[in-house]
Amino acid sequence: MTQRVVLAYSGGLDTSVCIGWIAEATGAEVIAVAVDVGQGGESLDVIRKRALACGAVEAEVVDAKDEFAQEYCLPAIKANGLYMDRYPLVSALSRPLIVKHLAATARKHGAGTVAHGCTGKGNDQVRFEAGIASLAPDLTCIAPVRDYAMTRDKAIAFAEEKGLPIVTTKKSPYSIDANVFGRAIETGFLEDIWNAPIEDIYDYTQDPAAPREPDEVVVTFERGVPVAVDGNEVTVLQAIQELNERAGAQGVGRIDMVEDRLVGIKSREVYEAPGAIALITAHQELENVTVERELARYKRQVEQRWSELVYDGLWFSPLKRALDGFVEEANAHVSGDIRMTLHGGRAQVTGRRSASSLYDFSLATYDTGDAFDQSLSKGFIEIFGMSGKIAARRDLAQ
Amino acid sequence: MTQRVVLAYSGGLDTSVCIGWIAEATGAEVIAVAVDVGQGGESLDVIRKRALACGAVEAEVVDAKDEFAQEYCLPAIKANGLYMDRYPLVSALSRPLIVKHLAATARKHGAGTVAHGCTGKGNDQVRFEAGIASLAPDLTCIAPVRDYAMTRDKAIAFAEEKGLPIVTTKKSPYSIDANVFGRAIETGFLEDIWNAPIEDIYDYTQDPAAPREPDEVVVTFERGVPVAVDGNEVTVLQAIQELNERAGAQGVGRIDMVEDRLVGIKSREVYEAPGAIALITAHQELENVTVERELARYKRQVEQRWSELVYDGLWFSPLKRALDGFVEEANAHVSGDIRMTLHGGRAQVTGRRSASSLYDFSLATYDTGDAFDQSLSKGFIEIFGMSGKIAARRDLAQ
Amino acid sequence: MTQRVVLAYSGGLDTSVCIGWIAEATGAEVIAVAVDVGQGGESLDVIRKRALACGAVEAEVVDAKDEFAQEYCLPAIKANGLYMDRYPLVSALSRPLIVKHLAATARKHGAGTVAHGCTGKGNDQVRFEAGIASLAPDLTCIAPVRDYAMTRDKAIAFAEEKGLPIVTTKKSPYSIDANVFGRAIETGFLEDIWNAPIEDIYDYTQDPAAPREPDEVVVTFERGVPVAVDGNEVTVLQAIQELNERAGAQGVGRIDMVEDRLVGIKSREVYEAPGAIALITAHQELENVTVERELARYKRQVEQRWSELVYDGLWFSPLKRALDGFVEEANAHVSGDIRMTLHGGRAQVTGRRSASSLYDFSLATYDTGDAFDQSLSKGFIEIFGMSGKIAARRDLAQ
Amino acid sequence: MTQRVVLAYSGGLDTSVCIGWIAEATGAEVIAVAVDVGQGGESLDVIRKRALACGAVEAEVVDAKDEFAQEYCLPAIKANGLYMDRYPLVSALSRPLIVKHLAATARKHGAGTVAHGCTGKGNDQVRFEAGIASLAPDLTCIAPVRDYAMTRDKAIAFAEEKGLPIVTTKKSPYSIDANVFGRAIETGFLEDIWNAPIEDIYDYTQDPAAPREPDEVVVTFERGVPVAVDGNEVTVLQAIQELNERAGAQGVGRIDMVEDRLVGIKSREVYEAPGAIALITAHQELENVTVERELARYKRQVEQRWSELVYDGLWFSPLKRALDGFVEEANAHVSGDIRMTLHGGRAQVTGRRSASSLYDFSLATYDTGDAFDQSLSKGFIEIFGMSGKIAARRDLAQ
Repeated sequence: MTQRVVLAYSGGLDTSVCIGWIAEATGAEVIAVAVDVGQGGESLDVIRKRALACGAVEAEVVDAKDEFAQEYCLPAIKANGLYMDRYPLVSALSRPLIVKHLAATARKHGAGTVAHGCTGKGNDQVRFEAGIASLAPDLTCIAPVRDYAMTRDKAIAFAEEKGLPIVTTKKSPYSIDANVFGRAIETGFLEDIWNAPIEDIYDYTQDPAAPREPDEVVVTFERGVPVAVDGNEVTVLQAIQELNERAGAQGVGRIDMVEDRLVGIKSREVYEAPGAIALITAHQELENVTVERELARYKRQVEQRWSELVYDGLWFSPLKRALDGFVEEANAHVSGDIRMTLHGGRAQVTGRRSASSLYDFSLATYDTGDAFDQSLSKGFIEIFGMSGKIAARRDLAQ
Repeated sequence: MTQRVVLAYSGGLDTSVCIGWIAEATGAEVIAVAVDVGQGGESLDVIRKRALACGAVEAEVVDAKDEFAQEYCLPAIKANGLYMDRYPLVSALSRPLIVKHLAATARKHGAGTVAHGCTGKGNDQVRFEAGIASLAPDLTCIAPVRDYAMTRDKAIAFAEEKGLPIVTTKKSPYSIDANVFGRAIETGFLEDIWNAPIEDIYDYTQDPAAPREPDEVVVTFERGVPVAVDGNEVTVLQAIQELNERAGAQGVGRIDMVEDRLVGIKSREVYEAPGAIALITAHQELENVTVERELARYKRQVEQRWSELVYDGLWFSPLKRALDGFVEEANAHVSGDIRMTLHGGRAQVTGRRSASSLYDFSLATYDTGDAFDQSLSKGFIEIFGMSGKIAARRDLAQ
Repeated sequence: MTQRVVLAYSGGLDTSVCIGWIAEATGAEVIAVAVDVGQGGESLDVIRKRALACGAVEAEVVDAKDEFAQEYCLPAIKANGLYMDRYPLVSALSRPLIVKHLAATARKHGAGTVAHGCTGKGNDQVRFEAGIASLAPDLTCIAPVRDYAMTRDKAIAFAEEKGLPIVTTKKSPYSIDANVFGRAIETGFLEDIWNAPIEDIYDYTQDPAAPREPDEVVVTFERGVPVAVDGNEVTVLQAIQELNERAGAQGVGRIDMVEDRLVGIKSREVYEAPGAIALITAHQELENVTVERELARYKRQVEQRWSELVYDGLWFSPLKRALDGFVEEANAHVSGDIRMTLHGGRAQVTGRRSASSLYDFSLATYDTGDAFDQSLSKGFIEIFGMSGKIAARRDLAQ
Repeated sequence: MTQRVVLAYSGGLDTSVCIGWIAEATGAEVIAVAVDVGQGGESLDVIRKRALACGAVEAEVVDAKDEFAQEYCLPAIKANGLYMDRYPLVSALSRPLIVKHLAATARKHGAGTVAHGCTGKGNDQVRFEAGIASLAPDLTCIAPVRDYAMTRDKAIAFAEEKGLPIVTTKKSPYSIDANVFGRAIETGFLEDIWNAPIEDIYDYTQDPAAPREPDEVVVTFERGVPVAVDGNEVTVLQAIQELNERAGAQGVGRIDMVEDRLVGIKSREVYEAPGAIALITAHQELENVTVERELARYKRQVEQRWSELVYDGLWFSPLKRALDGFVEEANAHVSGDIRMTLHGGRAQVTGRRSASSLYDFSLATYDTGDAFDQSLSKGFIEIFGMSGKIAARRDLAQ
């Protein structure tokens, strides 16, 4: 029986050429899989037809926007997932979802190999291949760009030679990856890290410096899940989309950073993720109100490791799974409303309201009604500082 | 010989009354110590004279602004010290410095007791007393407000009865603590955590929403120390002061959060710290450029613990000392320039330049000149994902 | 209505006197609760009658040995719970169980206060009171020894004066706390930390230095739970009891250490916990065989924090609960057999066998059958070492 | 000019063949470097002559035993370096030292390449190559066994064909690596992880089960450095050697474990490291006596990461360097005596004595002389448990 390869297909030049390239290099039949994670652009039907026109024996297309929001973005919100305290893991979250659909398609069609269009120096190759190793460890992975030396120039030549139905324009100066959780922009003049980004590269966000009226929004969470915006019930997808609109219109969520890639190099990345940043900002403050101190302190460490694992392509790893259990438990009481002002590039929390609040006015107030027994403090301080005091006596004596 | 008590003196009503209150409660002589950490207000000389007029047998005043910036704010910048990822530890940094001067004054004048004006439900009482326990474990601490039931009303009555030279106006609705690294505002209507702050409460920062021209600034660091602003050499104090001015004028550094106090309660705090936030933002990004990945990842954990220790009043603790060693080593190559745009409440990094940069254009670029050997990646990914793959085989089989 | 106090009752002099002491000090009725956690000694019925004879209005006795093993010792085995890498948390595990029964009894009898016999300088007072604060935050706690100055001498006088049915012999030179998970010995000549323990103080263990035949045992775990010993099905309680016998007979599980108490002081503690140490040793090695590397590495940190929380009396805390979720997930595949030799004070693992094993002979072997593709390693090493290499180039140049 | 390759030379079959193999494969001249880290066996002079006889153009031999003990084993003692809480990093410690000498020799002789005899599936290849990447990032690395398919059979054939002056006996069933800090045994029947080790494989240790008299030893440390044994001044090397003898004679330091290799597989390893285990045991307990609690708790995490880094071949990494600073500071007061009984495979601490002790008899004692103010505890407990109590009220209400 002819071997089959399942290819992660975007509809663009590179992966369109991959179809034929893989067929020639391996003799296998190629099955294209395109997944809509909210990246915009052409319709799935157009993409499906192009895959077939480019030689795919089958083409599967999936509208996975709700699945992406619910199963991948939501855990990131609950974990306040920010790699290097900044990057809301936009691309890193979509890769495992795509991997899941690739593996399922491979099973369905009896394919033994999975292919992707990544280069050999980025994170995404790892996310694809480590993901496949975890979901379908018997499958092998190939990356034509990396493994079969499929350069851009050769791809254009191939497309023209074969008369593939794709426009082979000059490459954009930027490399873009987008989904509903955000948009990543790299390469071009941004590779000089002294250069500032220009307005031109942004799509999800307006110029934060432009004068406009602030927007006030109230986000409601239940057990860490955003369930309403300004009192209107929403799915997680709708919450992200509405905040992409509204926070994006205020320039919220632009990130410009030098980042540590898994492959050991530093790269300069520009992101825009208005909905993600607004939701995480709100979620963090609701945690400040509803999560007990020691749990909150430990959760910060867990969040860091969680974010590193996801960034590093280990979404399906045993450690990620165990950390998810921790994160889920920590969100058990993260319910209530957060009011934010969106303006000038910032999502600024201005109010919180929660039936699960641990903020106790009668303990916190310095006014009438103070219920805190201050006489307890002397004993607390003395014993809290005891080990340090004993050490100090020793240190000062030596 | 008459016992002596050294009192942390601010010149305000509470600590002015403390002088006589302590004398009456203990029979001891009171020595007042006032430390200028950039809180503004009256001159040290005026404060010194008031202390004596209120009955202090001695009054020491210290301009410690440079010492504060160099010995307390600078380590916080190097450690990106942000409690709960937000609060740049403004008050928490000044307390150990004051403690140091209290202990030194106690030694100089043979005092066996140190006193402060804190209440029994905040963090500052712990910072004073745990600090004294570490620097001078033989001294005892008293807090008249907490230990001798010195309420505000009683203090006013005392001041009027004794004719103390202080204005006993109605208390401000807010409780303010300020120094050159920032300003903290609490109590009043902010104790309802659904209420938004009003413009009125801010002093270091202008309204970020007001239309104005952005300000661009370049900060130069050497081994983690800010040494120049826009190319002009500065001391750490000058760096903070200049950025307080310029970032403050753009509304940078406002923080509104619910925070976990050491004494176990949550409180609502509003801060403004334009210089601190601008400097830490710049320092973080310069670390992104100059610090090796694994060191950078670990440092985040160290920063969190460092910030908790400082917040919790353990500045002089053995663990804080050991973490300082780590932080110092991690800053060995944090040298270079960071360009930021200050505007609309944000300090946004737009460029970095460093002779110690680990960003390698030839490895990062996707353009001509790419020096990264992509053929290495396949082996890397396979082995990087090996333990997960073996586990997946087991998990899927069970 | 008369107030009621529920007292943690052991049957010994101190808590027997507490019954009357509390009644006199507070005017309340005292209800005694005795919990059998395997401490040995008198029967629950004898203890119950003594409580009544000493003036208790009610006396509840509970055989909680199985509950203790299942709900408290088992989580500790799964978490490899060793405070300071040594102490298997013997007393720290029993306190929350007793607290649970105290709270339940208080509810049943409408009591508003809980009492315990602890002093004011140990960990157990914290474990009782922090436990009550978490299970029944409306109850208040009293500790007659600490709060009502009930010294040993006064207790003896009280017992004699009231004719209480207890023997008021001279106190043992040691302070002992025992349960099925182990036995703790402190005070006396051991307070000189240069003194070695003597054979006399041990009860669960024989002299490890005495010549005897080794004992070989196979422990079977399912998902982290010990379910069989030498192929015979056991409950957790039986597993601990059988290994207490057999490992104890070989001198396994003696611990002599200086330990950091929660109240800030260091104390010298001697423990013997043969079953606990044998089971944890076996469990750790089965984890080595069945838990994926990154999960295993992270779990060590979780274990440390888990052990600190339990030691510090925070069994019922939100963080402990969230860590339990992690530990549970990490044990999902910890199933299989561990063979150990018990001898000379050591439980030495000599074999492991598991259907969930991640040890793959074909990958590990250096002999025929080697399936590891060594050609992958060069790429792995190059990229694994990349960030360090780039940093080295910079460091060597500066 | 002819290229030169510096080879890590052991004198055994594999690396003897490597000399000619590399010369044939690359055309380069080979310079052999042999380093004595206490592995025993032939004299350095014999090894040097054999290298030359096998075709090396130069042969450098180094007695690095003292350097190894002082610069590599000592930091491991200070860090209580135990990978997976068990393995004292024996081989992992010697590799960076050898790397340092390889790099120095390469510089001295103008070589551009370094070679080692490791296979492609172990940790040592990573330790060599990541080490070289950090010390001499311009050098390239080769591993003939891995890169040039130099199997054992081919090596024997090569040796016989060329008449190399080495005995080409049948391979030992075990693979051994030894140095003064310990000895590692793997492969053979031990690859079946259910098989117990046999007495035959051990060399540094006697059977712990054999009846013999216990040995008592007192080790003195200054700032974490072992400086005397039974009162006699020793170098670090002598301390290790003497304890290898004495603890080894009592069967101390045998380890049998399944271990997570850096290359993602689990392997079964047997070690014997009597001196290392005895010294680390003593050092840990002296830390228990002299290190403040919070520093001690944090140090455990640092130790784990330190051990992982060293195991993973990152001895010269920036993070390792920064952790060393922490470890050094934490050892500042680790001075004093530890008395241990060596017997039956165990090094059991029985006494500690230190001028830097933080153990305070007057605070710890329950007898006359108790200086601990128990009245402080109530306030401490109440506030220590406050955040949990507030959370409990919320949780119970929901």
